[in-house]
Amino acid sequence: MNISELGEFGLIDQLTKDIKLQNTETLCGVGDDCAILRGDDNTDILVTTDLLMEGIHFDLTYIPMKHLGYKSAIVNLSDIYAMGGTPKQITVSLAISKRFQVEDLEDFYEGLRIACQEHKVDIVGGDTTSSMTGLAISITAIGTVEHGKAIRRDGAKATDIVCVSGDLGAAYMGFQLLEREKQVYYKQIEEIQKKMAETTDETAKKQLQQQLSEVSQPDFAGKEYLIERQMRPSARRDIIEGLRAQGIQPTSMIDISDGLSSEMLHICKQSGVGCRIYEERIPIDYQTAVMSEEMNMNLTTAALNGGEDYELLFTVPVADHEKIEAMEGVKEIGYITQADLGSVLITRDGNEFPLKAQGWVHLNS
Amino acid sequence: MNISELGEFGLIDQLTKDIKLQNTETLCGVGDDCAILRGDDNTDILVTTDLLMEGIHFDLTYIPMKHLGYKSAIVNLSDIYAMGGTPKQITVSLAISKRFQVEDLEDFYEGLRIACQEHKVDIVGGDTTSSMTGLAISITAIGTVEHGKAIRRDGAKATDIVCVSGDLGAAYMGFQLLEREKQVYYKQIEEIQKKMAETTDETAKKQLQQQLSEVSQPDFAGKEYLIERQMRPSARRDIIEGLRAQGIQPTSMIDISDGLSSEMLHICKQSGVGCRIYEERIPIDYQTAVMSEEMNMNLTTAALNGGEDYELLFTVPVADHEKIEAMEGVKEIGYITQADLGSVLITRDGNEFPLKAQGWVHLNS
Repeated sequence: MNISELGEFGLIDQLTKDIKLQNTETLCGVGDDCAILRGDDNTDILVTTDLLMEGIHFDLTYIPMKHLGYKSAIVNLSDIYAMGGTPKQITVSLAISKRFQVEDLEDFYEGLRIACQEHKVDIVGGDTTSSMTGLAISITAIGTVEHGKAIRRDGAKATDIVCVSGDLGAAYMGFQLLEREKQVYYKQIEEIQKKMAETTDETAKKQLQQQLSEVSQPDFAGKEYLIERQMRPSARRDIIEGLRAQGIQPTSMIDISDGLSSEMLHICKQSGVGCRIYEERIPIDYQTAVMSEEMNMNLTTAALNGGEDYELLFTVPVADHEKIEAMEGVKEIGYITQADLGSVLITRDGNEFPLKAQGWVHLNS
Repeated sequence: MNISELGEFGLIDQLTKDIKLQNTETLCGVGDDCAILRGDDNTDILVTTDLLMEGIHFDLTYIPMKHLGYKSAIVNLSDIYAMGGTPKQITVSLAISKRFQVEDLEDFYEGLRIACQEHKVDIVGGDTTSSMTGLAISITAIGTVEHGKAIRRDGAKATDIVCVSGDLGAAYMGFQLLEREKQVYYKQIEEIQKKMAETTDETAKKQLQQQLSEVSQPDFAGKEYLIERQMRPSARRDIIEGLRAQGIQPTSMIDISDGLSSEMLHICKQSGVGCRIYEERIPIDYQTAVMSEEMNMNLTTAALNGGEDYELLFTVPVADHEKIEAMEGVKEIGYITQADLGSVLITRDGNEFPLKAQGWVHLNS
């Protein structure tokens, strides 16, 4: 059977459906942002892992190695926060082809170290090996959480409020912008090279040579936020600390790596509930809106399906409404319903549409 | 700087030399088979990770997906045993290109599950994603060990006895055998195809077609052990349990993935000692010896540098000599000396040679 018939989540279900847990220390296995293992009487241990492949997850023509190191760590730390935990350690494995130099890897590690310092995390091990082509990065993050307090995907209940941190869609618009500028840049170079090949006049050749050296790097003025969101995402430690400070224990939580729709559906499916999300309440930055206009793309689609925001999506009991309102950087975007009401987006003009997961097969096709 | 100038271990040193541990829970970071983290009052947690790349670590023309799944788990569990620990959980990440089918991955998972059942280990998570070319496998294993009892590489002391489990060199000879048969097989096919292209006679063509369908798969009769050691290695849980039963606490331990020489030098360097290893005592299976004769390869070199045996190399105080002798499947191959005496192999004819690490750059060149 072809893998695309199942999709990412179908494939994972298929491969892991027969797994039976054998150790009492394993509190939660496959199916959440992290596995949950028994630590001591007061503490549970969280484990999460990601495998990032060149050409699929990152494009080295525009992301510098240092940023890539930083981002690789952040996307894993984000999964620990998405369980309400505190990241403590990471392991880092790299498979590298011959085109990489020691300096490239030093830059990568520099980015890693900055992320780890910001989040008080130790790099405790890993593996460094060769690859036939391209770069592969595998990071495992380990964290802790108070025993029994890990915030899973399956605890949302009807009437709970749906909350999201930060704003959505900016990382996706940043990606679109980088892709567009990359095309423009290569097209300029290609055209000059073509002219050079066609002319035999030495003066003209020199002028073209000059033009080639002057092909400008893209100017991202006024769009820095979009680039920053794509190249240097944040893991929302501050939100987890804020929730703890307010005494709020969310009933479910997930980080937004594949887009709001997909993540919301994970919570609904695993909690056995439905939801109503209001389009007008989805937090979107001004630059994201301007860019989607410029690119003639649907803004809500970018926010719903764009992914890579690494914001936190979570649910809290209605009783916590005022506490949430008092928190900075968190917005209430809807509420949880009984499962039979479905998972629904309510548009600005009052229409209802079922939320749809896009996931990775779509994004990579 | 070119990475080959530093080599694998030089590169890891270079990248990790500036890492400072920030969490008191991190007892031991980079530099051993596993990281050691604080669990509860009685238990420490071990973490290890490996990244396996198609074309570098495995060749799908002869290893079936099920065996690959099994072996991928085993090489990580072996690292947990090499710290004297008990593996409890693994996470599994796969990056897959378009040529793989769902059934391939089911076979891989079947092998994984068999290894996990044998070692009472839970699969608790992972990541499944796309790759541009080939298969990448990243596994992280988590285990436990009694607090303070993890067996590190840095505890060997002068006069300690050097011990090794099982026998060495067989996995390497198995690899050589598979490589040879692969060449023979392709050469046969190539020759027939050449003849077919050259002839215009229809009867001759039919005969050649028949020959093509009859090109035999290699016959490994009498060499099964070598193939088994390469395709389906063991992780020596039994040795760890035996040591515990005998009340032996080794002073240092490592698993043999890169060959006896390389691993022995890790122990010597990190313990600040030297060693004397006796060639005649290195355990070698009969099939390994026969095969090295047949291939006209040096048997001791295969045992010293071959790698992939996943046996345990460890040191114990002299006082444990009799207990070690009582254990099945463990052999004393030499002893630890002061550092200034060097790390030395004593050959059958009494000559001395310094041990040399080969490591991965060599193997891949």
